Amino acid sequence: MISQKLPKIWYGGDYNPEQWHEEVWNEDVRMFKIAGIDVATLNVFAWARNQPDENTYDFSGLDATIDRLYKNGIYTCLGTSTAAHPAWMAKKYPDVLRVDYNGRKRKFGGRHNSCPNSPTFRKYSERMAEKLAERYKDHPAVLVWHVNNEYGGYCYCENCADSFRNWLKETYQSIEAVNKSWNTAFWGHTFYDWDEIVPPNVLSEEWDGNRTNFQGISLDYRRFQSDRLLECFKLERDAIRKHTPDIPITTNLMGLYPELDYFKWGKEMDVVSWDNYPSIDTPISMTAMTHDLMRALKSGKPFMLMEQTPSQQNWQAYNSLKRPGVMRLWSYQAVSRGADTVLFFQLRRSIGATEKFHGAVIEHVGHEHTRVFRETATLGRELAELSDHIIDAQVNAKVAIVFDWENRWGIDLTSGPSVALDYVKEVHKYYDALYQQNIQVDMIGIDEDLSNYDLVIAPVLYMVKGDYHKKLEKFVADGGTFVTTFFSGIVDEHDLVTTGGYPGKLRNLLGIWSEEIDALHPDVYNQIVIKDKITHLEGEYQCNILFDLIHSEGAEVVAEYGDDFYKGMPAVTRNTFGSGEAWYIASSPDSAFLQDLMADLCAAKEIKPLLTSEPGVEVSQRVKEGQEYLFVMNHNNKTSQFELGNEQKRDLLTGETVNGTISIAAHDVMILTDQ
Amino acid sequence: MISQKLPKIWYGGDYNPEQWHEEVWNEDVRMFKIAGIDVATLNVFAWARNQPDENTYDFSGLDATIDRLYKNGIYTCLGTSTAAHPAWMAKKYPDVLRVDYNGRKRKFGGRHNSCPNSPTFRKYSERMAEKLAERYKDHPAVLVWHVNNEYGGYCYCENCADSFRNWLKETYQSIEAVNKSWNTAFWGHTFYDWDEIVPPNVLSEEWDGNRTNFQGISLDYRRFQSDRLLECFKLERDAIRKHTPDIPITTNLMGLYPELDYFKWGKEMDVVSWDNYPSIDTPISMTAMTHDLMRALKSGKPFMLMEQTPSQQNWQAYNSLKRPGVMRLWSYQAVSRGADTVLFFQLRRSIGATEKFHGAVIEHVGHEHTRVFRETATLGRELAELSDHIIDAQVNAKVAIVFDWENRWGIDLTSGPSVALDYVKEVHKYYDALYQQNIQVDMIGIDEDLSNYDLVIAPVLYMVKGDYHKKLEKFVADGGTFVTTFFSGIVDEHDLVTTGGYPGKLRNLLGIWSEEIDALHPDVYNQIVIKDKITHLEGEYQCNILFDLIHSEGAEVVAEYGDDFYKGMPAVTRNTFGSGEAWYIASSPDSAFLQDLMADLCAAKEIKPLLTSEPGVEVSQRVKEGQEYLFVMNHNNKTSQFELGNEQKRDLLTGETVNGTISIAAHDVMILTDQ
Amino acid sequence: MISQKLPKIWYGGDYNPEQWHEEVWNEDVRMFKIAGIDVATLNVFAWARNQPDENTYDFSGLDATIDRLYKNGIYTCLGTSTAAHPAWMAKKYPDVLRVDYNGRKRKFGGRHNSCPNSPTFRKYSERMAEKLAERYKDHPAVLVWHVNNEYGGYCYCENCADSFRNWLKETYQSIEAVNKSWNTAFWGHTFYDWDEIVPPNVLSEEWDGNRTNFQGISLDYRRFQSDRLLECFKLERDAIRKHTPDIPITTNLMGLYPELDYFKWGKEMDVVSWDNYPSIDTPISMTAMTHDLMRALKSGKPFMLMEQTPSQQNWQAYNSLKRPGVMRLWSYQAVSRGADTVLFFQLRRSIGATEKFHGAVIEHVGHEHTRVFRETATLGRELAELSDHIIDAQVNAKVAIVFDWENRWGIDLTSGPSVALDYVKEVHKYYDALYQQNIQVDMIGIDEDLSNYDLVIAPVLYMVKGDYHKKLEKFVADGGTFVTTFFSGIVDEHDLVTTGGYPGKLRNLLGIWSEEIDALHPDVYNQIVIKDKITHLEGEYQCNILFDLIHSEGAEVVAEYGDDFYKGMPAVTRNTFGSGEAWYIASSPDSAFLQDLMADLCAAKEIKPLLTSEPGVEVSQRVKEGQEYLFVMNHNNKTSQFELGNEQKRDLLTGETVNGTISIAAHDVMILTDQ
Repeated sequence: MISQKLPKIWYGGDYNPEQWHEEVWNEDVRMFKIAGIDVATLNVFAWARNQPDENTYDFSGLDATIDRLYKNGIYTCLGTSTAAHPAWMAKKYPDVLRVDYNGRKRKFGGRHNSCPNSPTFRKYSERMAEKLAERYKDHPAVLVWHVNNEYGGYCYCENCADSFRNWLKETYQSIEAVNKSWNTAFWGHTFYDWDEIVPPNVLSEEWDGNRTNFQGISLDYRRFQSDRLLECFKLERDAIRKHTPDIPITTNLMGLYPELDYFKWGKEMDVVSWDNYPSIDTPISMTAMTHDLMRALKSGKPFMLMEQTPSQQNWQAYNSLKRPGVMRLWSYQAVSRGADTVLFFQLRRSIGATEKFHGAVIEHVGHEHTRVFRETATLGRELAELSDHIIDAQVNAKVAIVFDWENRWGIDLTSGPSVALDYVKEVHKYYDALYQQNIQVDMIGIDEDLSNYDLVIAPVLYMVKGDYHKKLEKFVADGGTFVTTFFSGIVDEHDLVTTGGYPGKLRNLLGIWSEEIDALHPDVYNQIVIKDKITHLEGEYQCNILFDLIHSEGAEVVAEYGDDFYKGMPAVTRNTFGSGEAWYIASSPDSAFLQDLMADLCAAKEIKPLLTSEPGVEVSQRVKEGQEYLFVMNHNNKTSQFELGNEQKRDLLTGETVNGTISIAAHDVMILTDQ
Repeated sequence: MISQKLPKIWYGGDYNPEQWHEEVWNEDVRMFKIAGIDVATLNVFAWARNQPDENTYDFSGLDATIDRLYKNGIYTCLGTSTAAHPAWMAKKYPDVLRVDYNGRKRKFGGRHNSCPNSPTFRKYSERMAEKLAERYKDHPAVLVWHVNNEYGGYCYCENCADSFRNWLKETYQSIEAVNKSWNTAFWGHTFYDWDEIVPPNVLSEEWDGNRTNFQGISLDYRRFQSDRLLECFKLERDAIRKHTPDIPITTNLMGLYPELDYFKWGKEMDVVSWDNYPSIDTPISMTAMTHDLMRALKSGKPFMLMEQTPSQQNWQAYNSLKRPGVMRLWSYQAVSRGADTVLFFQLRRSIGATEKFHGAVIEHVGHEHTRVFRETATLGRELAELSDHIIDAQVNAKVAIVFDWENRWGIDLTSGPSVALDYVKEVHKYYDALYQQNIQVDMIGIDEDLSNYDLVIAPVLYMVKGDYHKKLEKFVADGGTFVTTFFSGIVDEHDLVTTGGYPGKLRNLLGIWSEEIDALHPDVYNQIVIKDKITHLEGEYQCNILFDLIHSEGAEVVAEYGDDFYKGMPAVTRNTFGSGEAWYIASSPDSAFLQDLMADLCAAKEIKPLLTSEPGVEVSQRVKEGQEYLFVMNHNNKTSQFELGNEQKRDLLTGETVNGTISIAAHDVMILTDQ
Repeated sequence: MISQKLPKIWYGGDYNPEQWHEEVWNEDVRMFKIAGIDVATLNVFAWARNQPDENTYDFSGLDATIDRLYKNGIYTCLGTSTAAHPAWMAKKYPDVLRVDYNGRKRKFGGRHNSCPNSPTFRKYSERMAEKLAERYKDHPAVLVWHVNNEYGGYCYCENCADSFRNWLKETYQSIEAVNKSWNTAFWGHTFYDWDEIVPPNVLSEEWDGNRTNFQGISLDYRRFQSDRLLECFKLERDAIRKHTPDIPITTNLMGLYPELDYFKWGKEMDVVSWDNYPSIDTPISMTAMTHDLMRALKSGKPFMLMEQTPSQQNWQAYNSLKRPGVMRLWSYQAVSRGADTVLFFQLRRSIGATEKFHGAVIEHVGHEHTRVFRETATLGRELAELSDHIIDAQVNAKVAIVFDWENRWGIDLTSGPSVALDYVKEVHKYYDALYQQNIQVDMIGIDEDLSNYDLVIAPVLYMVKGDYHKKLEKFVADGGTFVTTFFSGIVDEHDLVTTGGYPGKLRNLLGIWSEEIDALHPDVYNQIVIKDKITHLEGEYQCNILFDLIHSEGAEVVAEYGDDFYKGMPAVTRNTFGSGEAWYIASSPDSAFLQDLMADLCAAKEIKPLLTSEPGVEVSQRVKEGQEYLFVMNHNNKTSQFELGNEQKRDLLTGETVNGTISIAAHDVMILTDQ
């Protein structure tokens, strides 16, 4: 568990008492108790208060808050306050200010605003972390360290340019190796000296965020910035760890955030935490996938839900309220997929600045007689009762979907074949097909051991790095089923094409050659025509976006295209390889195809759904010491059904015993066990 | 009246003879006489000609023009020529050049291009005004001073930054007060020194024009820029006033222009003037509302229509011609709502640069045998005959709608709850409901005395400044009817939320508590279900955008929501308060609801329509020495009807006597009196 | 012919062996031979390789490539390598870097990246051209010089500002003349010193690419940049010509590219070449028109198709494959309209950077067993057989359409009357009406002799420069038929309106006066109502965008408007002038009208279609020594018909003899002669 000090599902959230005064503080504590809140995240944006000038540190306010809360049974998730530099620092040391993508030197403003290569930022953020660690190392309230906040944003300043050149020297050793890796002979961009290299942005090689003339430099710049921001985290982490080696350290991530290679970050964190802010149109299975992805960063270890809103957000276009029950429902969704905390942003609403219309446990009215507070208090009581069952429970899956940030960057940066290709959406299509059938999935990185899985799916594995193909070959040879898609095996880790025929290094495993890749407007569909019915796969399906024109080189042709000049060419192939098989899906299919494909592949591997439910009823399971906890969550606005069969189960939340066909109310949750 | 020198409705417009030569000048005068033109606006953009270098002034051209026109019976509206600085000044004194929202130092170009805090601009614009005043103070041709032109545009240069800090010091006295007002504890933006504060733009706190991290600084920057531009006006005004204390001074405003707080500006002007350029899709009632708003800037005093096009504009996407009769129709619309001048941009079309496709009285063909000229000349004759009736006549209204630029800025800058909320559109919805029923309305600022009104409407009164709620309470206690809406009473003048429950300071007056604010896509509608029929209000109406979830605390529930989880909660309430009543409309209603609501509220106060007419027939009334002038204006493309009943009226334009059901031709106008 | 060294249609394309190694080079040669490739374009982007530092030149790689290819029968189209400067040059001499439209100094990156006024660029590009010419002047492989690549892009740096002032001094002699030409009296922009003038971009007079406050300066800046880029071409050309006076020199143009006045460029090139990259939605007749326009740059001389893709592009949104047969079909389209080469970008696909998903003759798979390669090889064989028939053949037309870049700039820069007006689309409407009827057209510049034509069409001849109207008057007086449209004759070469009534200088020729110009949303249509049926013209047609309100001053009214307040006013007029007639089309008509109009006008002049075919079957003809070669090209996806009548023709591609009604397969081509 994250900390023995508080062996339950932590409940609470961000708390900013520096925006308030003493009377309010007392009301806060009174209401926190009513709501069952036992953790407060403090000090996230307090750098300017903690360090009013270069030489002065003042933690008196923080001391008082930690003490006051602890006296009232509330622990601290302790921020390091470095997520926004003080105004005096920006004035005195402009190197902390970033240069933006358009090449403009920024002035003081916003947050997440420090250049990751700024000597000033590095020096003072590390020093701040150390001072906090020294001061609070023995305080019993401190449960976990929360370094900085939502790291992100790139910088293009001269310090970054220099640091980039150093990063390249470390990575490539020679300028010749850089030229080769970036294929600079193209358009005569050959570099003869490291100093000729400039960061890729609107002033040099890029435009529109992800468009670039040279994929190589743009890819490396993303690696470099992700690494340098990670170094900033590590500087603070190591300063803390010296003093409190036993208190876990995290920083809050942002799910599918594109700019950081979170698999690298997960390795450096003691516990993963993240902030869950779905939009009004985010599919619920996309949120589930993101929880699974965050769990993957430390290979399945439980994680922290660091932030969610109790009611509404403020920065969306239309900030709808979470309907009654939905805050609880989505909290359990997180728990069901590995979260051992339920924390909110924030505990009391600000009265000024950009987030004053972001929901909070304590709203502007200031009392507890609100719908939002009542729902929060109800959940607090439930979680207190549940905790010893759930914490540290694992999620077990036999199906894995590969997700890789560098592959994503490679696809995003590509010029051609189609702007309609979206890596995250393609991955989610496969995830959703399994989700709809209540089949538990692990999202995995490319470093993950495959031997625990029966089925591994790698949608649009455009970039095959190093010997990853050999790992896949071994997995299949040993009996596993592997699925990949169109536009896979195209390039290596430098975004250089593997010549000799697509899908490059995967060609042997898949038993096919992809001769051409057609791209049509996404409104134009072709058909996937199944040749011989399997169990679910039968008849015709639709596909669009990209169309690989493939030839079998040994693979069985499972389906053909139904239209266009490549009608009759393979659209789906299956290649027997050792004891397993490798599938290739040559275009982007509709959900009917993917659900039927997944049903057939899982059936072949005897991977069973957790149970059968109506659409909109989500099921996920955690397991602890052999005991299974089956979470059933109804996202529908109406009562819905699912099937338990004859098995007798107990609902942890109500204590009732159930079997057969079960009704679950709109937005309700059940946690079923055999006990 | 504006000036005793010319006691009639002035007729004319901008005239730029410096672009032409003598033969043309003579033709101009000949045609001006045919058209009945008696006022020319001169010298608006002639700085470079008047002052060819730093030490030389040359007004010989202007002298000649003023004299030539005056000899031919044409008076001068005399511009100060400072709306575009000379190129030599930009070259020699770059401080006159602005830094734009993106942080870029501009070069010479455009107009309205001077930094309002530039010492050079202030020095030389004031000096120019003074020189003009000295030179022409005794010239009988000068009717009115036209300072600069269409002030607007913000600057973000270092001079502005310094000046902003001074403005803040004057406003707040201490840096602690600034921190409190802007809630800088949020995100740790605490300032310890004035010099740490930088202007809010893309390089610091803002983006996309109206998006900001800190509403406080952004709101104050708008106040600051509006004030500093107003100072520029006052510098010129005072320099002139020393020499010509009896000649009125104006500058032409731009109606609903967002950047300047025109109520502050109106107080400094002797007479309000404005430029009316509706788009192809501007509702005609929006133009009417804007005239009423411009009249409000000096509490009902007649104003000047300084610019309109006789035919087409050039800077819209599709610059349609004004259909036959429409120029006359819209001119009378202005007059009917308080304009005592009808002026055009411009009298003769330029042959080069950006406005050469903007219509003019004299078109490129150069003679008077055009549709546009004929219509101009016809109107000129009419206005000459009408003048002694109309000038100085008042518009009287018992209904007032509150409009406030700072409230507008607050709403525009808000992050959440919905990007679909548009203050001007919400205000216009209420205005239009009254307009459609021919009920005269005053648009008023928050300083206006309320005691003359029976009904005061303040749509989306998000920001309640100072004790404005007490003024409203007194108005209602004394018997008035007050209407406000969702998202009102939220913040004070610093955009800081009034805690203790929405609608904040208005809660007592309204007798309700708004617990939550839902925001949905504007395509999603709820229903307003009337509980007990009043007279017009009955059954169900639609509403959208925002939905306040309110509880009555004494107010009568007039209507409830018909859908969603807040079905049955109050949607419309009426609170008896002293001798009056205060209404709350909890969502944004359809026009049917608003027309019925206004009909009921006006009936209760015995406020009667000016008369009954078909849709598209506008009615407005001016009153002078007890005599009523009823303007009836048919905006339809077909003959339409209105009802006079038994009352006998005379049409000033035709001299005919009418009563009963009257037909009015497409685009025609009648001015009816009892005489 | 372009060069006696290779008297056939050249076949090949861009080749970049510097991105590969020796084994690949050998494979390349083997496959080039299979494909019939006899020309390789070399050295286009090799500046950094050729000149690794300021003082070192190394052509050893290029020597080897030219020799190796030549030994294998492949000639060289020799690039000068200056289309992208080396990184070391950008580092050492930042004056080579451009300042962009937004005023930002660029850093190293991209291509076509050199400031045209950079002393460094001019010095080293000229020197490079000279060194190449000296080195290869006697090499038998060199067929043609290819200077730079796709010139384009403007710069706004201080060197450009100075050079612009010099260009203005040369052009205008005096600052007074500049002021007059730009009408700077408008908005008081009078310049008293050359140094006050700054380039027009976002920081001064322009925004959004083509929006400007002063059309005069913006128009001149386009002329200036086009001229200075042309000087860069001429510097290299002249350096080469000294050494190889007999080898033709070209640079590859880009069809309808807006930034350069290609008629000026054509005059300086020995042979025109261009790159044909239609989008997925480019009408096939737009491509035909562009070929005809490129042929026009040297008054009908055969041109080079310098680049096209054999399969797909990479920089479109959706990069579809060219369907089977389409690459051949479009290659013949080019040949049929005057191309004497068929060249590809590129011969072997890059493995890295932005064009790796751009098709090539040799794909990433690296062998010849691909659809693309097979189609390429088939075409190579055909072209080898065809060549002595086709090369140097002329395209003869009796109909000309006027196209003028300065007129286009003038229209693009205009503020008003409608953003929907698109010069290229209006021109294409007229072209397409003729194309659909298989009537051969010449696109001509305004310097072209008109005496060879019977029908001259000048759509939207907004800008009438100098005495061009006299040339048109003579053409008509001598018996020609002239057609022009709404919004013609408005301004002179300085974008200054010709006063006295539109269409200005054309008024006498057309016998009309255009009083007003209405602009409506392009979704709003009026009708063209024909008064008396001609042969095809009859009944009603639709028109939109702009509507000139014209009066006949002698012209016959052929059609009237059917709607709006100008119903019954002339919509189409015909004026007899000398022995010919001049037509005015007062609005933008639908294609039915234009086809009927063209049919009537051609019939009157006895201009006959080349033959009659189904829609989608394109016909074009080249003539050599009296022998006609009729290209019939089926762009449909199905077999289609055309009519030969009794005439017996031989298909050069199959050798078969045909007559009567002929079927042509989908995407097939026939070349019919009398032989």
